[in-house]
Parts: sequence; C-alpha cells; structure tokens
Amino acid sequence: MTQIILGSQSPRRKELLKGAGFDFEIFSPEMDESFDDDMDVYKVPAYLAEKKGDLVYEKFGSDKIIITADTVVILENEIIGKPTDFKDAKQILQKLSGKMHEVVTGVCMQFNGKKMVFSDTTKVYFEALSQKEIDYFVDNYKPLDKAGAYAIQEWIGYIGVRRIEGCFFNVMGLPIPLVYKKLKEWSEV
Amino acid sequence: MTQIILGSQSPRRKELLKGAGFDFEIFSPEMDESFDDDMDVYKVPAYLAEKKGDLVYEKFGSDKIIITADTVVILENEIIGKPTDFKDAKQILQKLSGKMHEVVTGVCMQFNGKKMVFSDTTKVYFEALSQKEIDYFVDNYKPLDKAGAYAIQEWIGYIGVRRIEGCFFNVMGLPIPLVYKKLKEWSEV
Repeated sequence: MTQIILGSQSPRRKELLKGAGFDFEIFSPEMDESFDDDMDVYKVPAYLAEKKGDLVYEKFGSDKIIITADTVVILENEIIGKPTDFKDAKQILQKLSGKMHEVVTGVCMQFNGKKMVFSDTTKVYFEALSQKEIDYFVDNYKPLDKAGAYAIQEWIGYIGVRRIEGCFFNVMGLPIPLVYKKLKEWSEV
Repeated sequence: MTQIILGSQSPRRKELLKGAGFDFEIFSPEMDESFDDDMDVYKVPAYLAEKKGDLVYEKFGSDKIIITADTVVILENEIIGKPTDFKDAKQILQKLSGKMHEVVTGVCMQFNGKKMVFSDTTKVYFEALSQKEIDYFVDNYKPLDKAGAYAIQEWIGYIGVRRIEGCFFNVMGLPIPLVYKKLKEWSEV
C-alpha cells in the first residue's frame, strides 16, 4: 500500500483519516497562512491547502500520497479565524449565535505527478446561545485553536447546532467521504 | 437539580446526554415494540418513545424528569429495522447504498405532570457502496444492534455518508439540541 503523508497536526483530521481505515505519517511544515484580501473567501481554504501541499511535496516528492487541508468558517462572506484570546472567542460565538454560517474545507491531494485541489462546504445552523452558555463553553473548553471558536463534537455543538446541510465530517476538518473516494483510485484499499 | 431518568440502554444516547452536561440514571424496561401496520411510519418512533415513557413513569412518577426515545430508519416510506443476522445486515446496506434515507427519532419527555412528545427527522445521503465495502463493514463492525445496520460515527459513515440535512446527533439516536432546550425549561442548567 502506498504510504500516505498527512500534512496537518489537527487531532480531528488524524481521527477522521484513521477512522476511514488509513495508516499515515504526519509532516506539517510551518507556513505563512496569509492570503490576498481580494481573494474570494470561498477559495481561501483550497489556496492554503495547496500552498501547504507544495511545501510537503518539496520534502517527499511524488512517490507518496500527500494530503493537506485547511478549514475556515465563513459568516456573511467574511472569514472568522481562530480567536486571539478568550474575550475574542466569546465575541465570535456571539456573532455565530442564532445564525447560519458555512464551514469550508479545502483539500489538496498529490500522488505520482497528479494533483487534485477541491473544497467542500457545509452549512451550520446555530441556535441562539445565551451569554451564560457562551461563557461556560469558552471558560471550560478554551477553543483558542479552533476556527470559529468552536468544535461541533464538543458541548457547544451538542446544545447549539440544531441543523447542518452537507458533510458532518467536513465541519470537523476533513470531508473524509470525498478523500476516501480519491484515495481508493490511487491506492489499494 | 432535578433528577433525570434516561429510559434507554443505547450507549450513543448516554454519550449525547452526558456530552450536553447532564447527570442521569438509566432505567430501561422491557417493552413490546410492535405497532399497528396501518400507522404512518413517521409517527412510529414517537409512539414507541411515549409507550416506553409511560412504562418508566409507572415506576418513577412525576418528580423526576423522564426521557425516552426511539429511532427508526425510513427508506421509501418503509421502516428498516435492526438486522436479524449478518446476511440481513448486508442486504439492508445494499438497499441504502447510493440513496437518501431518513432517520427519525421520537422523544418523550415527562416531568411534574407535563408530557411532551416530539420527533426530529434527518435526511442521510449514502454514497454507492461496493460489495467489498459492505462485507468489510458488517464482518468487522457487526452492526446487529443498529437500526438500518449502520452507525454514522463508525467506518461506514466516514466513507459513505457524504451529506446530511438536519441534526447530526439525531442520526446517532437523540436530537440533543432539542432535548437540551426542553430540559433548560424544566431544570437549572
């Protein structure tokens, strides 16, 4: 079986790729995650996934399967990044409260001279959250490493996400059914 | 805080209620799960949840919050039950392959003389599954205790469920955001 390199430190991505039955190694290079302000926000995650994919390719070349990904939260055509501190996390959740936002994951997959870049979008509908709920979540779950200051598989998802449209796993950081389908074409499963 | 009784042995329901921050006890009476063939299939889970709720109520009365639930898989207006054996599990997954089905969870909540019965429906879109994938899943995950012969949070979900519309947790067996909202009205959270 061809060796797979996952270019991500995200524990959720590791869990999803492992859960789909794949063995892999991790190599996640440091990268400047800036992008042009003029860029269509929906194209940003694919752009960043490909940029990271190119860095991993420089190290491993084309005889291994390389998977990189980037996930963003988009609210009203604006990217909501990772919170800078607890106060910012609470403000982000206040913005998301009672509204629909989109989670877009861009994926870059490379193998044997081929490169595929694609994105998957999931709509997430949040209940109206009280200040008490937001404070409780941020103080206890400290979501500073998460785009949009939440994880759907944690307390705030259980109580607050009443509806999604699209791939659930995509919200966790990787549209694993799509990735699996591509991997099947490239590798004995 | 008012004591909560969960009338279910399902490990997924326990995980969801616990994940939403509630402490509870389990009491799950044996029950005849038959229903009238003429009944609208979408009404069956609420009917069974209420029937079980009434049994739990007989034991505990109205000073505790009682939560019971029943989940069914509906494909083309027909209830797909739990598989009778591995062969049946494989046949069920062949039926679900490449199609949309609905997961309906009926919930009955009782407290202090009040009773609420409601349902939540989630549409689940399965990729086309190969015979090899179906065999691998059934042989390794042995999904005999699961309606529709699958769990969305297991391998077959990771590779096969490309889209859902509705509550993800509902597919796992309990629409926890809805249950949380009702519990907040009844109990200090």
